[in-house]
Amino acid sequence: MRSSNRFESHAGLFNLCIVVLIAVNSRLIIENLMKYGLLIRAGFWFSARSLRDWPLLMCCLTLPAFPLGAFMVEKLAYRKYIPEKLVIFLHVIITTATIVYPVLVIIKCDSAVLSGFVLMILDCILWLKLVSYAHTNYDIRALSKTVDKDDLRSSYLDPDNMKGVSFKSLVYFMVAPTLCYQQSYPRTACIRKGWVIRQLIKCLIFTGLMGFIIEQYINPIVKNSQHPLKGNLLNALERVLKLSVPTLYVWLCMFYCFFHLWLNILAELLRFGDREFYKDWWNAKTVEEYWRMWNMPVHKWMVRHIYFPCIRNGLPKGVAVFISFLTSAIFHELLVAVPCHSFKFWAFLGIMLQIPLVILTKYLQNKFRNTMVGNMIFWFFFCIFGQPMCILLYYHDVMNRKVRTE
Amino acid sequence: MRSSNRFESHAGLFNLCIVVLIAVNSRLIIENLMKYGLLIRAGFWFSARSLRDWPLLMCCLTLPAFPLGAFMVEKLAYRKYIPEKLVIFLHVIITTATIVYPVLVIIKCDSAVLSGFVLMILDCILWLKLVSYAHTNYDIRALSKTVDKDDLRSSYLDPDNMKGVSFKSLVYFMVAPTLCYQQSYPRTACIRKGWVIRQLIKCLIFTGLMGFIIEQYINPIVKNSQHPLKGNLLNALERVLKLSVPTLYVWLCMFYCFFHLWLNILAELLRFGDREFYKDWWNAKTVEEYWRMWNMPVHKWMVRHIYFPCIRNGLPKGVAVFISFLTSAIFHELLVAVPCHSFKFWAFLGIMLQIPLVILTKYLQNKFRNTMVGNMIFWFFFCIFGQPMCILLYYHDVMNRKVRTE
Repeated sequence: MRSSNRFESHAGLFNLCIVVLIAVNSRLIIENLMKYGLLIRAGFWFSARSLRDWPLLMCCLTLPAFPLGAFMVEKLAYRKYIPEKLVIFLHVIITTATIVYPVLVIIKCDSAVLSGFVLMILDCILWLKLVSYAHTNYDIRALSKTVDKDDLRSSYLDPDNMKGVSFKSLVYFMVAPTLCYQQSYPRTACIRKGWVIRQLIKCLIFTGLMGFIIEQYINPIVKNSQHPLKGNLLNALERVLKLSVPTLYVWLCMFYCFFHLWLNILAELLRFGDREFYKDWWNAKTVEEYWRMWNMPVHKWMVRHIYFPCIRNGLPKGVAVFISFLTSAIFHELLVAVPCHSFKFWAFLGIMLQIPLVILTKYLQNKFRNTMVGNMIFWFFFCIFGQPMCILLYYHDVMNRKVRTE
Repeated sequence: MRSSNRFESHAGLFNLCIVVLIAVNSRLIIENLMKYGLLIRAGFWFSARSLRDWPLLMCCLTLPAFPLGAFMVEKLAYRKYIPEKLVIFLHVIITTATIVYPVLVIIKCDSAVLSGFVLMILDCILWLKLVSYAHTNYDIRALSKTVDKDDLRSSYLDPDNMKGVSFKSLVYFMVAPTLCYQQSYPRTACIRKGWVIRQLIKCLIFTGLMGFIIEQYINPIVKNSQHPLKGNLLNALERVLKLSVPTLYVWLCMFYCFFHLWLNILAELLRFGDREFYKDWWNAKTVEEYWRMWNMPVHKWMVRHIYFPCIRNGLPKGVAVFISFLTSAIFHELLVAVPCHSFKFWAFLGIMLQIPLVILTKYLQNKFRNTMVGNMIFWFFFCIFGQPMCILLYYHDVMNRKVRTE
């Protein structure tokens, strides 16, 4: 009687799961409220302490110098004033400086974690854009040379891509919600103002919710924890599991705010046509699928500037994937370790650990032909285990460092 | 992009719900283990204290006297030694005595809650069976009279139902997993011994699990609670929600053990053919559907001996349903209040509250044409709110009574 295989026969049990989830969460909210009261303070959003980080703001405001430098290099290269090798060398210097300069500022200033993190995010986006800019312009120049040599083939080429470097297209690329440079993008006809306002309001609400969850739920849990690798194992497990639920909600809020709301708002304001900022990663059947779907701007950048160049240079697919994950791991480490002033490679290891998970979930997917197993493993490693573990590891490193320096 | 309506597009989110549920439950298990350690004691299953309740065992062993009395009444009625009215009167006396006798024993002996509850369950089953026995035999006699009068109609009647009362069929009915008397039942060809052993092992495991959940999770929560209607509202809500999860698991275990495993084992051993002990109540779209599906033996009894007789006597459908729920409420109250020695009508009110819920969920079902809303309301009122609330109310009444008597 219970062996019926149709999905409908268990629809009620799924509803039960949701009801139990709501009940358990409500109880945890009440418990938290009875234990701590409301923790949100008026000074949470604007505190005098964040003014201490003005060098970071200055650093942020000087960042546009790098794309300007890259533009001048391209202009010179286009007019063939400087040889190709010097162009590459100058671009390497500019992109390296783009990364090194804010890292040094953050380390020197001993800045707060949040402001450092925001600067590093902006900086990494800039780096990715500059690499794409240099790489694409290099390809266009190489292409136009073959066109010069062999006029017959010019009919195959898109004339749009063959125009000279323009300052306007660089500025548009720098603000547009994409990491892959093109001289022109598909554009929408107009800006839907009412829609933008609605999305902005949603964005504000969900950012507020995110801040509230962090202050009210994540902070007390993290403060009451011990270093997850040093204390009692059972205790650490309890903390990780307790942390996993609010972390998951913050992650979902963050994803919704940034990838769904903010990037769409930006695209709408810039009349940017391509709105594929994410695919349905929540259904990912393997870990690889997740990494291909959750962040389309970075994924497209990776494919265009890392994966395909590797393949074109004769590397096997597996090595190309490995190099992509390695790049990702280095940037995740930079993003997290620099603002935390703690280079312990947890984020790096976290991303590199994805490679065995990719292989494992692919194997399971082939073996069971069941979409649920891989998806659940992904959710477990990503949200239940991975993120809370990273938060705890970095939190205790930051705290230990503070204790030592004070 | 998120507005896709297909169910598949959210399959991953359902998986996430399950993963989060597992994570939250694991954490609560660890938290409980760190706080209380293992609470299960060797004396949990057999304690010297339960020997104090030997009068209940004696009472239980004397219960077969009532069906014996009913059999003799029927024998006399069949041979027409006593008039029909006296038969009805004797059956009323026997069935009333069936209920009153154990109730008096339990109240006099001041027995433990669990042994009293088991006796009351057995007693209520016996009462339902005796009522069905008397009612069905009455109908058969009435039918055979019309057959005597009008031989032409006899071809329509099942000859099986027209045999005289037999002691063997009464004994079989008393032990069989049904509450509706028939002179003979469909039977299976043989007993699958291996299957029975497997089910028995499962039954033992799940009964153990049930006991473990009660001792380890429900007991500490209940002991640390205040009377839900007297203390702080937020605190009471927290306790009810905390209690709801283990209560739900115990309920599901109990249902699985009794309705799926035990009744099937009993039916297999007695070669009883009809195995429809429950339908898929977990998918119930309205509260009414739930009550029609979860307990088929009682439902069939209700339909045959309460609902249809009411309809035949010209009562409107709504009144017949009301009378069915009233009967159910009285028996639920008896089952719970007598062993708890506390007549506060919480169980009675709990069942009577089902009537507005039936109307509400039926209305919502008609309005939304969505199977999820009614199902979720059912789960919420039944498992999240109803059962824990009842447990807390009766627990505090029992405790208050103990304090007063000591």
